[in-house]
Amino acid sequence: MTYCLTIKTDQGIVFASDSRTNAGVDQVSTFSKMHTFEVAASRAFCLLSSGNLATTQAVLRQIRRDNDMASDTCLNNAQDMAEAAEYIGSLSRAEQRKHSSRGDDSFNPEASFILGGQLADRQHQIYLVYPEGNYIVATEQTPFLQIGELKYGKPILDRIISKDLSLELAARCALVSMDSTIRSNLTVGPPVELLIYKAGSLKFGERLVLQEENPYFHQLRQAWQEGLKATFDRLPDVPFSRPAVHLVDVKGDQ
Amino acid sequence: MTYCLTIKTDQGIVFASDSRTNAGVDQVSTFSKMHTFEVAASRAFCLLSSGNLATTQAVLRQIRRDNDMASDTCLNNAQDMAEAAEYIGSLSRAEQRKHSSRGDDSFNPEASFILGGQLADRQHQIYLVYPEGNYIVATEQTPFLQIGELKYGKPILDRIISKDLSLELAARCALVSMDSTIRSNLTVGPPVELLIYKAGSLKFGERLVLQEENPYFHQLRQAWQEGLKATFDRLPDVPFSRPAVHLVDVKGDQ
Repeated sequence: MTYCLTIKTDQGIVFASDSRTNAGVDQVSTFSKMHTFEVAASRAFCLLSSGNLATTQAVLRQIRRDNDMASDTCLNNAQDMAEAAEYIGSLSRAEQRKHSSRGDDSFNPEASFILGGQLADRQHQIYLVYPEGNYIVATEQTPFLQIGELKYGKPILDRIISKDLSLELAARCALVSMDSTIRSNLTVGPPVELLIYKAGSLKFGERLVLQEENPYFHQLRQAWQEGLKATFDRLPDVPFSRPAVHLVDVKGDQ
Repeated sequence: MTYCLTIKTDQGIVFASDSRTNAGVDQVSTFSKMHTFEVAASRAFCLLSSGNLATTQAVLRQIRRDNDMASDTCLNNAQDMAEAAEYIGSLSRAEQRKHSSRGDDSFNPEASFILGGQLADRQHQIYLVYPEGNYIVATEQTPFLQIGELKYGKPILDRIISKDLSLELAARCALVSMDSTIRSNLTVGPPVELLIYKAGSLKFGERLVLQEENPYFHQLRQAWQEGLKATFDRLPDVPFSRPAVHLVDVKGDQ
């Protein structure tokens, strides 16, 4: 499994991904799931991938091939982000169709992608491309997208993320969400890759690759854990046998 | 969907459940998923249920019927908790078999249960009964069990719960886990029911039924949200362009 997430704020975009792939517990490997495509002063895209590794690798190979050949339809020529998402969806569908007729229910060629970035003179955007090839764009109300093992890390995003958050805080939140997922699910694992895109820059900043023993990642996890425990200890007591509690019969509808 | 969880500590057991049932978004109702069975000075059981409501209601009816008739196999006569879990599993399987031959893939009669409690002179225990009728018991390493929409609320349990936690703190943690799930998933909803069992007591304490607007529940959620935000703001800065960060090529296996 995989966990990738992307947060879009007014200041830019934060990308984060784990690096574990597995096909059964005895086939566990490490692969980067974060891929960037830049054309100087014209466009910058980052693609996060989840699902069948053969499908995602084939899609990436085709993206590079189309770019190299300057095909009519390629990331370098896409007129806008929606066209780029549509293009990735069609590559993914084509690749899945090649392998889906094996008649074996345990085989699943599906893959999902998050595409984020910016074209010159356009807004920065993030898109989620489903295995079926269709796609959605993040909105101001829910300015993040996730693929893979997404439920463990969603509550902290729901609580913290808003579009006016700084990129620094959004990046911290992405790492906490990733850490919660890694702790609760063995199929998501380090190194964690973290990349920040500043709106309008048309180029990506430094990519952090955080191994489990990375001092900063360790320090962050420890500070979070201690902060949670301290918060927890300060929560109000459960009011058993206090008159303020409403005791309601829940048998009827309401 | 549903979210139920049970935490076993040295001091006793905490039970928590939501009350939302839905079959599609236009068939949403409120049903209690928490059911207690007590025989004075002999045994106290609490059963939490998740899955097909017709199945879980039929299982509960049969449990009550068997108890009333003092059948050879019933909760009141079970020699130990494992026998009680086995009994519930067999009732659940029998009920599912009645309805599983409709040949309609969209229909799912499956149900899961958590059984917790104590028999006189035995240890208090918690068991999870799968739809297939088999069951597991919680261990000291992972002293909680969940059924239903369990992933959103798992990270906080993984971080906080240990067997030496007080029942009071375990109850707070159950409510936070429930709140995280309710915020992130529309199919889990209040009222939240909370019940505490003190080891050795052979009877249940007061059951709290917390509506969304319950003052304590509101206060707890607000304190948690504020504590998280404050913790978050104090986390160490992401060390972009600091020499201490390890930049590692993740292309090779490791």
